[in-house]
Amino acid sequence: MQYAVIGTGVVGRTLAAGLAALGHEVTVGTRDVRQTLERTEPDGYGTPPYSQWSTDHPGIRLRTFAEAAHGAEVVVNASAGAASLAALTAAGADNLAGKLLIDVANPLDFSRGMPPTLNPVNTDSLGEQIQRAFPAARVVKTLNTMNTAVMVDPRRVPGPHNVFVCGDDETARKEAAGLLADLGWPSDWVIDLGDLTAARGLEQILPLWLRIWGTLGHADFNFLVQRAR
Amino acid sequence: MQYAVIGTGVVGRTLAAGLAALGHEVTVGTRDVRQTLERTEPDGYGTPPYSQWSTDHPGIRLRTFAEAAHGAEVVVNASAGAASLAALTAAGADNLAGKLLIDVANPLDFSRGMPPTLNPVNTDSLGEQIQRAFPAARVVKTLNTMNTAVMVDPRRVPGPHNVFVCGDDETARKEAAGLLADLGWPSDWVIDLGDLTAARGLEQILPLWLRIWGTLGHADFNFLVQRAR
Repeated sequence: MQYAVIGTGVVGRTLAAGLAALGHEVTVGTRDVRQTLERTEPDGYGTPPYSQWSTDHPGIRLRTFAEAAHGAEVVVNASAGAASLAALTAAGADNLAGKLLIDVANPLDFSRGMPPTLNPVNTDSLGEQIQRAFPAARVVKTLNTMNTAVMVDPRRVPGPHNVFVCGDDETARKEAAGLLADLGWPSDWVIDLGDLTAARGLEQILPLWLRIWGTLGHADFNFLVQRAR
Repeated sequence: MQYAVIGTGVVGRTLAAGLAALGHEVTVGTRDVRQTLERTEPDGYGTPPYSQWSTDHPGIRLRTFAEAAHGAEVVVNASAGAASLAALTAAGADNLAGKLLIDVANPLDFSRGMPPTLNPVNTDSLGEQIQRAFPAARVVKTLNTMNTAVMVDPRRVPGPHNVFVCGDDETARKEAAGLLADLGWPSDWVIDLGDLTAARGLEQILPLWLRIWGTLGHADFNFLVQRAR
């Protein structure tokens, strides 16, 4: 399968590497290829420059957002939430039309300092904003409720735990569940929440996630919905 | 221990009965005792009238908010989130001063229809609003992330699962953890998230909780934080 991963940060890299390891053809999309490759210093979060990571992953191409999306069957939005609509606009509505668009981003707003708040929140979600902006794409929100290392390696958290999917297109949700199965998620760990308005709840779990992260001191955790039946 | 439970709905009744069953003296607080007792019809949600429930729980007194809080060592806010500040104001700041104030309410806003949204949200929480309004109370937010039946009977959900506590007063958090232990929560199921700003995340889990409830078709579930260490 041909995947485009939108975003060159840790989330994009980890998902790109995870998908490539499964034998998929993966192209990472960025705003400006030359600029991305020319950076030689870690970013503000200490993330090594993309070029360094790229050397270790020679099979993964780097292209513009539009080139990456154009050649892809499935597009994964792994950009920072505040930049997602701009990045997908640059990718081009025509290059997204009809395609499964996996949205793993969270609309974190750092403008008020730490911890980040959410924008949008409560009556809207980034997932819904993306679907409205690209009505011909088949948006599925999933994987946003956990650390990126867990997304591609669920067994690093012991015991069962859950990943949620939601989206307006039921077939797209099933395709997303298939991708999750490829990544190592047993089918009974996947909870299908139905239409995309559930993205509000999935994104609003982030403030609690961040707080648990701070309390535990590490991100190797995830939520399990314990249930009577 | 003398408990006041603020709120005569299902949450208040369930907590009152649970605390009374442990041998505590429990007084339920209401705005107007006579009016509460005079209702003979189920409310809009099908909840039986208080008087009917009261007949089955003769040891639990019903008093005004102020009377209930005045005689209590611990006050439990189990009122509807939108009514909590008014109910606690009626209870009286003097009657809350110095006391552990357990806040289990969620600021659900039904004014835009179903599902409810949250108000406040994102940059504030009901727990923090209550603490600001009653600075001499020792507010602990806990138990708001689950169905009320699970609050007082955690074993009705199989396997381990978590309850969170947060509050600005560390001693108050420890006292709340003691109450949770009384209610059947093993100490290693309790996650202390620190100060009261964590109430934002705890309240923002509600939209996902509601969606999971709709998906499962029952409320006998709760979140477990699976973790590597």
